[in-house]
Amino acid sequence: MATKEERPQVLENREEPKEEGELPLVVVLRSKNFNLPLEDRLQSHFHLLDPNDSPDESTESFLSRHAHSARALLCVGLTPLTADTIGLLPSLELVVGSSAGVEHIDLHECRRRGIMVTSASAAFSEDAADYAVALLIDVLRRIAAADRFVRGRLWPVKGEHPLGFKLGGKRVGIVGLGNIGSQIAKRLVAFGCSIAYNSRKKKPSVPFPYYANVGDLAANSDVLIVSCALTEDTHHIINKDVMTALGKEGVIINVGRGPLVDEKELVQFLVRGEIGGAGLDVFENEPDVPKELFKLDNVVLSPHCAVVTLESFAALQDLVMANLKAFFSNKPLVSLVQNE
Amino acid sequence: MATKEERPQVLENREEPKEEGELPLVVVLRSKNFNLPLEDRLQSHFHLLDPNDSPDESTESFLSRHAHSARALLCVGLTPLTADTIGLLPSLELVVGSSAGVEHIDLHECRRRGIMVTSASAAFSEDAADYAVALLIDVLRRIAAADRFVRGRLWPVKGEHPLGFKLGGKRVGIVGLGNIGSQIAKRLVAFGCSIAYNSRKKKPSVPFPYYANVGDLAANSDVLIVSCALTEDTHHIINKDVMTALGKEGVIINVGRGPLVDEKELVQFLVRGEIGGAGLDVFENEPDVPKELFKLDNVVLSPHCAVVTLESFAALQDLVMANLKAFFSNKPLVSLVQNE
Repeated sequence: MATKEERPQVLENREEPKEEGELPLVVVLRSKNFNLPLEDRLQSHFHLLDPNDSPDESTESFLSRHAHSARALLCVGLTPLTADTIGLLPSLELVVGSSAGVEHIDLHECRRRGIMVTSASAAFSEDAADYAVALLIDVLRRIAAADRFVRGRLWPVKGEHPLGFKLGGKRVGIVGLGNIGSQIAKRLVAFGCSIAYNSRKKKPSVPFPYYANVGDLAANSDVLIVSCALTEDTHHIINKDVMTALGKEGVIINVGRGPLVDEKELVQFLVRGEIGGAGLDVFENEPDVPKELFKLDNVVLSPHCAVVTLESFAALQDLVMANLKAFFSNKPLVSLVQNE
Repeated sequence: MATKEERPQVLENREEPKEEGELPLVVVLRSKNFNLPLEDRLQSHFHLLDPNDSPDESTESFLSRHAHSARALLCVGLTPLTADTIGLLPSLELVVGSSAGVEHIDLHECRRRGIMVTSASAAFSEDAADYAVALLIDVLRRIAAADRFVRGRLWPVKGEHPLGFKLGGKRVGIVGLGNIGSQIAKRLVAFGCSIAYNSRKKKPSVPFPYYANVGDLAANSDVLIVSCALTEDTHHIINKDVMTALGKEGVIINVGRGPLVDEKELVQFLVRGEIGGAGLDVFENEPDVPKELFKLDNVVLSPHCAVVTLESFAALQDLVMANLKAFFSNKPLVSLVQNE
């Protein structure tokens, strides 16, 4: 279902593969069952050190024995990169992330050691924004519930499905106006929504109203879309007070990370009808989802897949490759995280 | 869930109610069980003649006895307005439709008699466009299927939900670029889609490529969105040849009318995997939906509710009222159908 003529461009490797001994070392950190289709392409350019290739040995022992001189590490998916692991890599200068967020990487330790970190948010931002918009319309118009209604053979029995709510004219507050949030805003403007946002700092080039306080943003919004990074500061940024400020008819969409929202409170607000609905791609204890939500038609539930399409995987490969190549040729990194 | 401060404007009636005898007559044609919340507002401006108010009498007898001098008729929802019924109304000059399409109204007979027809498509076009876009993203990204996956407790068991497809870059062919189709185009441009269209005539003011033939449009599209009026010419406009031209990865979205698509063929194409997916708000024999579709995860099913929200009902009331008031004050109608 990629476009017939315009399939995503994948950078072609026109160079001859080099001998393994000449290739720069890249440590690959991934959980055992997570096979990202990245390694094939990387292998002709880099000597990959993957602890999973030595199943009889611990990761620690493998890294201590083989990765002493490795200058770069590819962190696959949301595999935690701890200070202890970083401590096993004395030559490490670069961590290439392959996810939109980088909260699983110990940024303090990277900063202390002067290790650069890149994120893959640029590869995923359009997909995540598309998904956020679709979740929002789905909640307002009850589309997943409508599909259940039809599949459950209820249409001939009950006749009418409950009315939904219009997207146009809604005041949408975006929490975190980074790559993803900006793409969400661009889309929702075309639907006739008015946009406002909260982020750490006001963005001078952005035309939308800025709220320094999320509670104030909620009080002036019909919808909150959560698309910020998960940090100590943003943990439970959507708390009880914010939900109260959003109000009975308000909708919360979360395509960021589960712990950005106080999930226990959210469940209570939804069950008691104190907010209008929610579209959730992420949860605090994935893959566990609070079972109270399974009964609600004003909630859309999704298994953390907002950022992932066949096409974004291709874009991810390009981005990882581009960052590693830039690093080993002493050129500027493509998607450096500002780790201040 | 209407916006807190910007609830849809409803034209207020600041005039004093007139005596019933002075009010212009308006026949209301509706099916018995369909109560549109329109009549309360109309009653202070018009003397409504509703055959349902005389349950012991046939519609024919009621109209013959009471509606001889009625110049206007409000046709509620998709209630058929036949030449026979029109024949009972010798003074009829205006039919006010309250649905987006007017194929349930005998347009031949109206043309022959010089009766004007208005549609309510303007009140519904934004909602229908929102819904079409959401159905498209839902099909590409498998959102309803993802919701089923989570509610069915499959996430902890199966781990990953199948990858979806990206919307950006897709070539979307819109069949029928009227009120609804134009709103769909405007939205999809913001997602990075390229747009082309088919309609009876090329529209000079439209920047998108025009295809006079739907098969040619399909051959050059990844997605077809069907949003044209149902007429003799457009019945089964999406037929076997069009589906073949669209191809194995193509997606069909129908927010128009069921009979625009050859449903039997569509089911076969979907079951055999000869097209990529479908988002269907309308069906040929509503409320019956082909049961073969209930098993498919690349299909989203919806009970003909793309145009209906609480807000669009308010807009509909305004539009019906505006057309009737314009007619009885000899002013131009607000949403006259070109009945050529």
